[in-house]
Amino acid sequence: MTRKELIEQIFTKKTFLCVGLDTDIKKIPEHLLKEEDPIFAFNKAIIDATAPYCVAYKPNLAFYESMGVKGWISFEKTIQYLNENYPQHFIIADAKRGDIGNTSAMYARTFFEEMNIDALTVAPYMGEDSVTPFLQYDGKWVILLALTSNKGSHDFQLTTDTEGERLFEKVLRKSQEWGTADNMMYVVGATQGQMFEDIRKVVPNHFLLVPGIGAQGGSLEEVCKYGMTKDCGLIVNSSRAIIYADKTEKFAEVAGEEAKKVAEQMAALL
Amino acid sequence: MTRKELIEQIFTKKTFLCVGLDTDIKKIPEHLLKEEDPIFAFNKAIIDATAPYCVAYKPNLAFYESMGVKGWISFEKTIQYLNENYPQHFIIADAKRGDIGNTSAMYARTFFEEMNIDALTVAPYMGEDSVTPFLQYDGKWVILLALTSNKGSHDFQLTTDTEGERLFEKVLRKSQEWGTADNMMYVVGATQGQMFEDIRKVVPNHFLLVPGIGAQGGSLEEVCKYGMTKDCGLIVNSSRAIIYADKTEKFAEVAGEEAKKVAEQMAALL
Repeated sequence: MTRKELIEQIFTKKTFLCVGLDTDIKKIPEHLLKEEDPIFAFNKAIIDATAPYCVAYKPNLAFYESMGVKGWISFEKTIQYLNENYPQHFIIADAKRGDIGNTSAMYARTFFEEMNIDALTVAPYMGEDSVTPFLQYDGKWVILLALTSNKGSHDFQLTTDTEGERLFEKVLRKSQEWGTADNMMYVVGATQGQMFEDIRKVVPNHFLLVPGIGAQGGSLEEVCKYGMTKDCGLIVNSSRAIIYADKTEKFAEVAGEEAKKVAEQMAALL
Repeated sequence: MTRKELIEQIFTKKTFLCVGLDTDIKKIPEHLLKEEDPIFAFNKAIIDATAPYCVAYKPNLAFYESMGVKGWISFEKTIQYLNENYPQHFIIADAKRGDIGNTSAMYARTFFEEMNIDALTVAPYMGEDSVTPFLQYDGKWVILLALTSNKGSHDFQLTTDTEGERLFEKVLRKSQEWGTADNMMYVVGATQGQMFEDIRKVVPNHFLLVPGIGAQGGSLEEVCKYGMTKDCGLIVNSSRAIIYADKTEKFAEVAGEEAKKVAEQMAALL
């Protein structure tokens, strides 16, 4: 998906919500466990209920890999279902990959060519040649970890170098030598509040993928106040607060209602 | 596997070689393609031929994931084969994972509990809570990326902070607050030569996992000169130079000979 298509979709649907498909077999409604593939059955119902209120879906690979081969099957079925039924939604594989060049190239082939996923989250620690293989595909995106939503983000990401630049700022600046606002986004945790002001000084136009709203405690208003641009420039993710809002047979309906509520807040903020 | 067991194995077998199972369907001998699971058939033959000359195996997850569900099946079969037939070998899943705490905890369960893998490579960018879930298992290891073998390692890992500490040194120092030399190792690329001297100032006793010998151009002598400790302290990986040394029906035999040559050099250096 191109940047132009993404922006159009956001302003047409009046939402910049991403629903995180962090699907955990231990947390899904019990009645689904009798299904042949409970994870896929859950995802399918959640997707159908939330699609009108979001522009993106973000399965976190860890949740699928933790189930081994079965989990990969559920993951691939989910991606296929999205590609076939919701081709206008932006699909993010939250994989946090990053390896030497030839290995990153293999990941890029898998996720972009074979699975037709739109974007992949990538860890920046290994530098340029671990990132650039992902930038060779038209309409595909790297979402580079910059300032994450967890407590450990303070350990290294905030380290200031001899030039007075913090590591996350260096990642934001340096990576602009590799890609553009048309094929690169950044992960910035909603829990980082006013940091968005500093981030916008380095990347005024790039889209930011913002986790940490809801269960992790971030504020949507604050993120928008400091991070929104004229093109919106934000994709805000919510996982647990939407997909696990209810554990009865009405789980999908309730998830849809929760997504709708967030979308209404977003419409007001756009 | 405990540190004591690992050291004993190294000095008994007189080798500290790790064979990297970076198995690529496009690079394995053609005659294997008629097998039901060519990747597993290749790994099995390579393992049987090289086991006397190495102490560890390191499949790189990217190579398996790039084949989707099929690849995961080959990966799981390889791990099971190692567990059943070579329980004395140290198994490293080169996954370069790292996510928020609850997600890292899921990865830890998968790799350590379900698959009985000994160690997992982890990217440090997200800090403490992305690493510590992997440190909760007796006899299991985190291998944290410190100074990698690729060109892009210079982009962020060598950044000097206001205290005069480079990022990879901060990773080495800070992570010692989370784990010990009994459950933590570090990835240091062989291509970084004399940097091993600086690294040993910060982590005098920890094991280092050293990729980059062979195809990537690192020197075994130099790594040992600057990096070896009285307990050896090194696991040196070679992938392509061993596993793809020959592409005929004799591939496994030739791989065994190549591994033997490296092991002989290692015996002389121990």
